[in-house]
Amino acid sequence: MKPMKNNKHIVGIDIGGSHTTIGWVNEEGVVVKKIDFSLKPYVHIDDFILKIRQEITSSPLICQGIGIGAPNGNYFTGMIEFAPNLPWSGKINLCELLQSYFPEIPIYITNDANAAAMGEYRYGWGKENTLEDFIMITLGTGLGSGIFIKGEIVYGHDGFAGEIGHMIVDPMGRLCGCGRRGCLERYASATGLEITSLEFLNKKRISPDWFENPDQPKAKEVYVAAMANDPGALEIFDYTSKILATGLANAVCFSSPKKIILFGGLAKAGEILIQPLQKYFEEALLQIYKNKVEIMVSKLEENDAAVLGAAALIYEAMSN
Amino acid sequence: MKPMKNNKHIVGIDIGGSHTTIGWVNEEGVVVKKIDFSLKPYVHIDDFILKIRQEITSSPLICQGIGIGAPNGNYFTGMIEFAPNLPWSGKINLCELLQSYFPEIPIYITNDANAAAMGEYRYGWGKENTLEDFIMITLGTGLGSGIFIKGEIVYGHDGFAGEIGHMIVDPMGRLCGCGRRGCLERYASATGLEITSLEFLNKKRISPDWFENPDQPKAKEVYVAAMANDPGALEIFDYTSKILATGLANAVCFSSPKKIILFGGLAKAGEILIQPLQKYFEEALLQIYKNKVEIMVSKLEENDAAVLGAAALIYEAMSN
Repeated sequence: MKPMKNNKHIVGIDIGGSHTTIGWVNEEGVVVKKIDFSLKPYVHIDDFILKIRQEITSSPLICQGIGIGAPNGNYFTGMIEFAPNLPWSGKINLCELLQSYFPEIPIYITNDANAAAMGEYRYGWGKENTLEDFIMITLGTGLGSGIFIKGEIVYGHDGFAGEIGHMIVDPMGRLCGCGRRGCLERYASATGLEITSLEFLNKKRISPDWFENPDQPKAKEVYVAAMANDPGALEIFDYTSKILATGLANAVCFSSPKKIILFGGLAKAGEILIQPLQKYFEEALLQIYKNKVEIMVSKLEENDAAVLGAAALIYEAMSN
Repeated sequence: MKPMKNNKHIVGIDIGGSHTTIGWVNEEGVVVKKIDFSLKPYVHIDDFILKIRQEITSSPLICQGIGIGAPNGNYFTGMIEFAPNLPWSGKINLCELLQSYFPEIPIYITNDANAAAMGEYRYGWGKENTLEDFIMITLGTGLGSGIFIKGEIVYGHDGFAGEIGHMIVDPMGRLCGCGRRGCLERYASATGLEITSLEFLNKKRISPDWFENPDQPKAKEVYVAAMANDPGALEIFDYTSKILATGLANAVCFSSPKKIILFGGLAKAGEILIQPLQKYFEEALLQIYKNKVEIMVSKLEENDAAVLGAAALIYEAMSN
């Protein structure tokens, strides 16, 4: 007896640095099935494509489209282009490769922060409220961003818009992985929090006993200490939020969004981050924007957000 | 005999700090008639409105719509809101006031930099080429900006998007008229050039004899000296272009435009500004944007640009 295929779904694929999640999302935005696997065995992209194909075709759930969120995923070209943390180097024509196995359905890719923004628009704060102009900020190892203007993601002329994490906040500042100095993400991210901890330790601005290895402070340790009201840890969060505030105030000068939505590991710090951030943000805003732009934490469930966002790419494309 | 009214035109109004220009623009983008008057006698907005009305109704040219470019002009509200350099304080409901005299025709307002961007899109570089994603930078007393994404001006949720001049490039930097520190326009504008001159003079980094009053250096004097290859003047331009380059590289991170177009007094410095600017800009760009974004000088005739841009607002509205 053949499996029943009475449910139509979009497959959302979240490609991360170490593992990939495939999720089947129904029209209500529920992830009805999800599988997760390590990228390690898939050194060759062809093997990865075959794995995806096999998982989709072997499922009893009908797949009407495939949306993908990946580091350096480009909506215009359908490629992953030079993603430093993935096993495949150069330009990977992911959409075309998948399309050869699924010629009849829409397949789109975008970067992970844009996918998160799309998820927020469709399933998060945007689900019940008007959310046409907002900026999604993903605070993880780095700082990613997805920008919505008039209900659409900003891709720019080449698909690479929305790199707020690489806006320079201090031209003489910290060296960034991109080779330049003073990028926002070197301050406002889990990594930034750790560099700040190290700097504060070296300058003896703090002298905590809660770092397991003071040569390699962990963001998590700062968070735990801040939750216990440790003044040093709170100072690190204060410093981080002040720089993030300036970066966000600069972003507001560009697109004047209604909301800025925070997502990701560091956003889970909640009030420890948000409270000083909101204060510094209002101070940093140009007069005409004051008391107009809300900063809030994402409504998306962290576990499902990436897959939902990737699937939302297709639902949006289908509804336009 | 009644005057012949066989030509249909859009009236473009450019409201500046000291005077206003009214221009009649035909469908080919030619300013067929233009009048210019001082704002001094129009301390009351009602008198200003009556003046506009009288000029438009007394002309034999048919007016099909009125587009206005003004400092702090807001496309969404139709108002001029708290423009510091105009004679009328608070919120001026300009479009509504004019509409009461011209109830049948479209009337729109936007700020001067957006109007310039609209003019460029319709009558400048955008006239014969695709120009969907670009940023217009007006370099005058301050630094204004108009942002196009996918062929539309970015207004933001409140009509106030596009204040790149107030993106902070140095949180500890120069005090700005907006009350904050380190705004881009305090460095990259005619005023910025003059402050830099003063700083360089005070630090004895330059010792020129070509400032008429070294306590009040003029941008024009720096320009003339730079044209004559004076090393000090060229250093001032070099410094200015380096900071502008960082600001523009940050803007690229946001919307990834195809072009950045410079307009206004300082842009007329031409190669003296553009050459170092392009060099520093390429250096400052994030890798994925390198060699993709052109910086060019506006194609618009300075004298007509503001009026053309204002009129273009209406032509665009009519063609959508």
